[in-house]
Amino acid sequence: MSASGLHVQCRDEPGVLHRLTGEIAEQQANVVTVETGAVHQGVANLYFELDGPDIHAVAQRLRELPYVVACSEPRPMESIFGSRLIVIGGGAQVAAVASGAVQEADRHNIRGERISVDTIPLVGEAEIAEAVRAVPRLPRARALVLAGSLMGGEIAEAVREVREQGIPVISLNQVGSVTQAVDLVVTDPLQAGVMAVMAIARTARFDLARVRGQSF
Amino acid sequence: MSASGLHVQCRDEPGVLHRLTGEIAEQQANVVTVETGAVHQGVANLYFELDGPDIHAVAQRLRELPYVVACSEPRPMESIFGSRLIVIGGGAQVAAVASGAVQEADRHNIRGERISVDTIPLVGEAEIAEAVRAVPRLPRARALVLAGSLMGGEIAEAVREVREQGIPVISLNQVGSVTQAVDLVVTDPLQAGVMAVMAIARTARFDLARVRGQSF
Repeated sequence: MSASGLHVQCRDEPGVLHRLTGEIAEQQANVVTVETGAVHQGVANLYFELDGPDIHAVAQRLRELPYVVACSEPRPMESIFGSRLIVIGGGAQVAAVASGAVQEADRHNIRGERISVDTIPLVGEAEIAEAVRAVPRLPRARALVLAGSLMGGEIAEAVREVREQGIPVISLNQVGSVTQAVDLVVTDPLQAGVMAVMAIARTARFDLARVRGQSF
Repeated sequence: MSASGLHVQCRDEPGVLHRLTGEIAEQQANVVTVETGAVHQGVANLYFELDGPDIHAVAQRLRELPYVVACSEPRPMESIFGSRLIVIGGGAQVAAVASGAVQEADRHNIRGERISVDTIPLVGEAEIAEAVRAVPRLPRARALVLAGSLMGGEIAEAVREVREQGIPVISLNQVGSVTQAVDLVVTDPLQAGVMAVMAIARTARFDLARVRGQSF
């Protein structure tokens, strides 16, 4: 069951999200996903994915509202940017992991999948732990790779928390306690990126559950 | 002026977004940003950024609601994953652009900035045009790089549309009309990634407006 996309461009003013969600509920539709995008020249981009009997009717109703500038029905974000692999780390490793993951995602996407590789280069225990804890708040985030040489303490604790939320975590083989907290440890950064993409791909025969706790 | 983050974990049930935004409005706060994250074991992650006189009071009020499981006040996403450079393209080039951008973002982030590099490997005129048009709907997307060898037609049209929404676009030097539609053309993929990060970085002395229409 896949929700329908709805892109609303509306005046950027207080309360508009509450009013729009009220109109959507009145049309018997349910908001599955929402993301706020760019605001340009007083016009905000709001993107919804909705479940409901008649999304065209919702779009038609929203177009009648005085604060709505435009309303279109793009395909869902899952069909465009797809599942997201999040890469967090610093220095030489983070670019190598991203490169491996992008090359592997390219090979899957060319066969019809949609996998994005989203990378934040970061150093510092507190900074990385904060970013790890923010991953479950990101739309469509499906797995996390930690690309560094020394991670432990608060980062290991954050890894345990996000795994409890259903996000698998892969780490490079590195100094520190984080390697004890993750699903999988991989030494080569290119391969860490490749394996992480395999773990979230539908077209790969790779089941993270079957190698959990192992090191490569 | 920066909005305050609010992370709400709540029961994943119809109408919850409308009810939450109603409670937020009653506390005189305004939703600036919203993103829906992972849903795990019936609990949804909703992330807001709010403007208002007392966000602690909003959090306290939301914690009293029967459908709210937890509510915390993380720093805004702009302070964690920051500005997003979006990279779209296929083959060898897309990984090279991503690698250049990640390495440059690492150099800025180590000095206190936050820049993410988010890559979707894609081929096909319709597929790439669709992804280009979706960029303004992504949270915190600040610039776009097109990493390919042949792009034109509908992609060039999509590029003009997103530039009108305030998103600058950089293209690799390539076959097709897209190079006529972008802000900047760069031949070397590593440098294209580097320049794109420089264009959105606060710590770089690089003004895209001063080189618009040029080719490097």
